[in-house]
Amino acid sequence: MLEALIDSYIAVWNETDGAARYALVTKIWEPDARYIDPMTSGQGHDGIDAMIGAAQGQFPGMTFSRRGTLDAFGDRVRFSWDLGPAGAAPVAGGTDFAVVTDGRFANVTGFLDFTPG
Amino acid sequence: MLEALIDSYIAVWNETDGAARYALVTKIWEPDARYIDPMTSGQGHDGIDAMIGAAQGQFPGMTFSRRGTLDAFGDRVRFSWDLGPAGAAPVAGGTDFAVVTDGRFANVTGFLDFTPG
Repeated sequence: MLEALIDSYIAVWNETDGAARYALVTKIWEPDARYIDPMTSGQGHDGIDAMIGAAQGQFPGMTFSRRGTLDAFGDRVRFSWDLGPAGAAPVAGGTDFAVVTDGRFANVTGFLDFTPG
Repeated sequence: MLEALIDSYIAVWNETDGAARYALVTKIWEPDARYIDPMTSGQGHDGIDAMIGAAQGQFPGMTFSRRGTLDAFGDRVRFSWDLGPAGAAPVAGGTDFAVVTDGRFANVTGFLDFTPG
Protein backbone atom coordinates (compact mmCIF):
# COMPACT_ATOMS: atom_id res chain seq x y z
CA MET A 1 0.00 0.00 0.00
CA LEU A 2 2.88 2.35 0.73
CA GLU A 3 4.39 1.37 -2.63
CA ALA A 4 1.16 2.41 -4.33
CA LEU A 5 1.06 5.66 -2.39
CA ILE A 6 4.59 6.57 -3.49
CA ASP A 7 3.77 5.63 -7.08
CA SER A 8 0.79 7.99 -6.89
CA TYR A 9 3.05 10.67 -5.43
CA ILE A 10 5.31 10.45 -8.48
CA ALA A 11 2.27 10.27 -10.77
CA VAL A 12 0.83 13.51 -9.44
CA TRP A 13 4.05 15.39 -10.23
CA ASN A 14 3.68 14.09 -13.80
CA GLU A 15 -0.07 14.74 -14.15
CA THR A 16 -0.49 17.83 -16.30
CA ASP A 17 -4.27 17.64 -16.62
CA GLY A 18 -5.41 20.14 -14.01
CA ALA A 19 -8.57 18.35 -12.88
CA ALA A 20 -6.92 14.95 -12.74
CA ARG A 21 -3.98 16.38 -10.85
CA TYR A 22 -6.15 18.08 -8.25
CA ALA A 23 -8.19 14.90 -7.75
CA LEU A 24 -5.01 12.95 -7.12
CA VAL A 25 -3.65 15.64 -4.79
CA THR A 26 -6.75 15.42 -2.61
CA LYS A 27 -6.56 11.62 -2.63
CA ILE A 28 -2.98 11.27 -1.42
CA TRP A 29 -2.28 14.43 0.62
CA GLU A 30 -3.80 15.39 3.97
CA PRO A 31 -5.91 18.58 3.76
CA ASP A 32 -3.36 20.52 5.84
CA ALA A 33 -0.28 18.81 4.39
CA ARG A 34 3.00 20.65 3.89
CA TYR A 35 5.70 20.20 1.29
CA ILE A 36 9.07 21.95 1.17
CA ASP A 37 12.27 21.54 -0.84
CA PRO A 38 15.14 23.93 -1.61
CA MET A 39 13.23 25.50 -4.52
CA THR A 40 9.58 25.56 -3.59
CA SER A 41 6.98 24.88 -0.93
CA GLY A 42 3.25 24.45 -0.62
CA GLN A 43 0.57 23.83 1.97
CA GLY A 44 -2.87 22.31 1.74
CA HIS A 45 -4.54 20.78 -1.29
CA ASP A 46 -4.75 24.08 -3.19
CA GLY A 47 -1.22 25.16 -2.30
CA ILE A 48 0.35 21.83 -3.19
CA ASP A 49 -1.60 21.55 -6.44
CA ALA A 50 -0.53 25.05 -7.48
CA MET A 51 3.08 24.33 -6.52
CA ILE A 52 3.16 21.17 -8.65
CA GLY A 53 1.55 22.99 -11.56
CA ALA A 54 4.20 25.70 -11.36
CA ALA A 55 6.98 23.09 -11.22
CA GLN A 56 5.60 21.43 -14.35
CA GLY A 57 5.77 24.80 -16.09
CA GLN A 58 9.44 25.06 -15.15
CA PHE A 59 10.34 21.62 -16.49
CA PRO A 60 8.32 21.09 -19.67
CA GLY A 61 8.84 17.71 -21.30
CA MET A 62 10.46 16.30 -18.17
CA THR A 63 9.01 13.48 -16.14
CA PHE A 64 9.65 12.22 -12.64
CA SER A 65 10.40 8.57 -11.96
CA ARG A 66 11.20 6.65 -8.80
CA ARG A 67 14.79 5.64 -8.18
CA GLY A 68 15.59 2.67 -5.94
CA THR A 69 13.48 1.17 -3.21
CA LEU A 70 11.42 2.60 -0.39
CA ASP A 71 12.83 2.78 3.11
CA ALA A 72 10.06 2.99 5.66
CA PHE A 73 9.32 2.49 9.37
CA GLY A 74 6.36 3.61 11.46
CA ASP A 75 4.81 6.61 9.76
CA ARG A 76 8.10 7.65 8.08
CA VAL A 77 9.34 6.88 4.59
CA ARG A 78 12.18 8.01 2.36
CA PHE A 79 12.41 7.44 -1.37
CA SER A 80 14.39 8.87 -4.25
CA TRP A 81 13.43 10.13 -7.69
CA ASP A 82 14.91 11.24 -10.97
CA LEU A 83 13.77 14.02 -13.29
CA GLY A 84 14.52 14.00 -16.98
CA PRO A 85 13.26 13.65 -20.53
CA ALA A 86 11.49 10.35 -21.16
CA GLY A 87 13.96 7.65 -22.13
CA ALA A 88 17.03 9.79 -21.49
CA ALA A 89 19.45 10.20 -18.59
CA PRO A 90 18.04 12.19 -15.68
CA VAL A 91 19.11 15.81 -15.33
CA ALA A 92 18.31 15.99 -11.62
CA GLY A 93 17.47 13.72 -8.75
CA GLY A 94 16.44 13.96 -5.15
CA THR A 95 15.36 12.17 -2.02
CA ASP A 96 12.10 12.92 -0.23
CA PHE A 97 11.33 12.28 3.44
CA ALA A 98 7.71 11.94 4.33
CA VAL A 99 5.38 11.51 7.26
CA VAL A 100 2.34 9.47 6.24
CA THR A 101 -0.81 9.47 8.37
CA ASP A 102 -4.00 7.53 7.60
CA GLY A 103 -2.59 6.59 4.22
CA ARG A 104 -1.94 10.15 3.09
CA PHE A 105 1.04 12.49 3.12
CA ALA A 106 1.09 14.84 6.09
CA ASN A 107 4.53 16.33 5.58
CA VAL A 108 7.22 15.94 2.91
CA THR A 109 10.71 17.42 2.80
CA GLY A 110 12.62 17.12 -0.47
CA PHE A 111 16.41 17.27 -0.79
CA LEU A 112 18.35 17.42 -4.05
CA ASP A 113 20.87 14.63 -4.69
CA PHE A 114 22.18 16.04 -7.97
CA THR A 115 21.31 18.92 -10.26
CA PRO A 116 22.40 20.12 -13.71
CA GLY A 117 26.06 21.06 -13.46
CA MET B 1 26.92 27.43 13.08
CA LEU B 2 24.94 24.53 11.63
CA GLU B 3 28.21 22.60 11.23
CA ALA B 4 28.91 23.09 14.93
CA LEU B 5 25.38 22.04 15.84
CA ILE B 6 25.71 18.79 13.90
CA ASP B 7 29.12 18.15 15.44
CA SER B 8 27.51 18.58 18.87
CA TYR B 9 24.74 16.22 17.83
CA ILE B 10 27.29 13.51 17.08
CA ALA B 11 29.19 14.37 20.26
CA VAL B 12 26.16 13.86 22.46
CA TRP B 13 25.64 10.33 21.12
CA ASN B 14 29.26 9.65 22.13
CA GLU B 15 29.12 11.36 25.54
CA THR B 16 28.92 8.64 28.16
CA ASP B 17 29.26 10.92 31.19
CA GLY B 18 25.66 11.30 32.31
CA ALA B 19 25.87 14.89 33.54
CA ALA B 20 27.85 16.09 30.53
CA ARG B 21 25.48 14.30 28.18
CA TYR B 22 22.39 15.82 29.73
CA ALA B 23 23.92 19.29 29.63
CA LEU B 24 24.64 18.89 25.94
CA VAL B 25 21.15 17.49 25.27
CA THR B 26 19.55 20.57 26.81
CA LYS B 27 21.88 22.83 24.84
CA ILE B 28 21.16 21.45 21.37
CA TRP B 29 17.61 20.03 21.58
CA GLU B 30 14.39 21.97 21.98
CA PRO B 31 12.57 21.15 25.26
CA ASP B 32 9.76 19.38 23.39
CA ALA B 33 11.96 17.88 20.67
CA ARG B 34 11.24 14.48 19.16
CA TYR B 35 13.58 11.85 17.77
CA ILE B 36 12.64 8.64 16.00
CA ASP B 37 14.48 5.97 14.04
CA PRO B 38 13.65 2.34 13.21
CA MET B 39 14.98 1.11 16.57
CA THR B 40 14.19 3.76 19.14
CA SER B 41 12.50 7.04 19.86
CA GLY B 42 12.50 9.76 22.49
CA GLN B 43 10.80 13.03 23.33
CA GLY B 44 11.91 15.99 25.40
CA HIS B 45 15.24 16.48 27.12
CA ASP B 46 14.72 13.65 29.60
CA GLY B 47 13.36 11.24 27.00
CA ILE B 48 16.12 11.93 24.48
CA ASP B 49 18.85 11.74 27.11
CA ALA B 50 17.52 8.38 28.36
CA MET B 51 17.22 7.10 24.78
CA ILE B 52 20.84 8.00 24.00
CA GLY B 53 22.04 6.43 27.25
CA ALA B 54 20.22 3.22 26.37
CA ALA B 55 21.71 3.21 22.87
CA GLN B 56 25.19 3.59 24.35
CA GLY B 57 24.52 0.53 26.49
CA GLN B 58 23.63 -1.41 23.36
CA PHE B 59 26.79 -0.45 21.51
CA PRO B 60 29.63 -0.42 24.05
CA GLY B 61 32.97 0.61 22.62
CA MET B 62 31.38 2.00 19.49
CA THR B 63 31.49 5.64 18.50
CA PHE B 64 29.50 7.73 16.07
CA SER B 65 31.20 9.89 13.46
CA ARG B 66 29.90 12.13 10.72
CA ARG B 67 30.03 10.87 7.14
CA GLY B 68 30.09 13.31 4.24
CA THR B 69 28.84 16.86 4.16
CA LEU B 70 25.74 18.59 5.42
CA ASP B 71 22.86 19.31 3.07
CA ALA B 72 20.69 22.10 4.40
CA PHE B 73 18.06 24.64 3.34
CA GLY B 74 15.71 26.74 5.42
CA ASP B 75 15.22 25.00 8.74
CA ARG B 76 15.92 21.52 7.28
CA VAL B 77 19.15 19.57 7.24
CA ARG B 78 20.24 16.05 6.38
CA PHE B 79 23.53 14.46 7.33
CA SER B 80 24.95 10.98 7.54
CA TRP B 81 26.88 9.11 10.20
CA ASP B 82 28.82 5.92 10.81
CA LEU B 83 28.94 3.77 13.92
CA GLY B 84 31.87 1.54 14.72
CA PRO B 85 34.88 0.81 16.89
CA ALA B 86 37.39 3.67 16.94
CA GLY B 87 39.83 3.39 14.05
CA ALA B 88 38.02 0.46 12.42
CA ALA B 89 35.50 0.13 9.60
CA PRO B 90 31.97 1.14 10.58
CA VAL B 91 29.47 -1.60 11.34
CA ALA B 92 26.43 0.56 10.68
CA GLY B 93 25.54 3.88 9.15
CA GLY B 94 22.56 6.10 8.73
CA THR B 95 21.17 9.39 7.52
CA ASP B 96 19.29 11.76 9.78
CA PHE B 97 16.78 14.40 8.71
CA ALA B 98 16.25 17.28 11.06
CA VAL B 99 14.19 20.38 11.59
CA VAL B 100 16.23 23.01 13.41
CA THR B 101 14.53 25.97 15.09
CA ASP B 102 16.29 28.76 16.98
CA GLY B 103 19.57 26.88 16.70
CA ARG B 104 18.27 23.70 18.32
CA PHE B 105 16.85 20.43 17.06
CA ALA B 106 13.06 20.35 17.03
CA ASN B 107 12.57 17.07 15.22
CA VAL B 108 14.93 14.39 13.92
CA THR B 109 14.12 11.25 11.91
CA GLY B 110 16.88 8.71 11.50
CA PHE B 111 17.07 6.13 8.69
CA LEU B 112 19.59 3.28 8.45
CA ASP B 113 21.79 3.19 5.35
CA PHE B 114 23.54 -0.07 6.23
CA THR B 115 23.59 -2.44 9.19
CA PRO B 116 25.58 -5.53 10.24
CA GLY B 117 24.79 -8.24 7.71
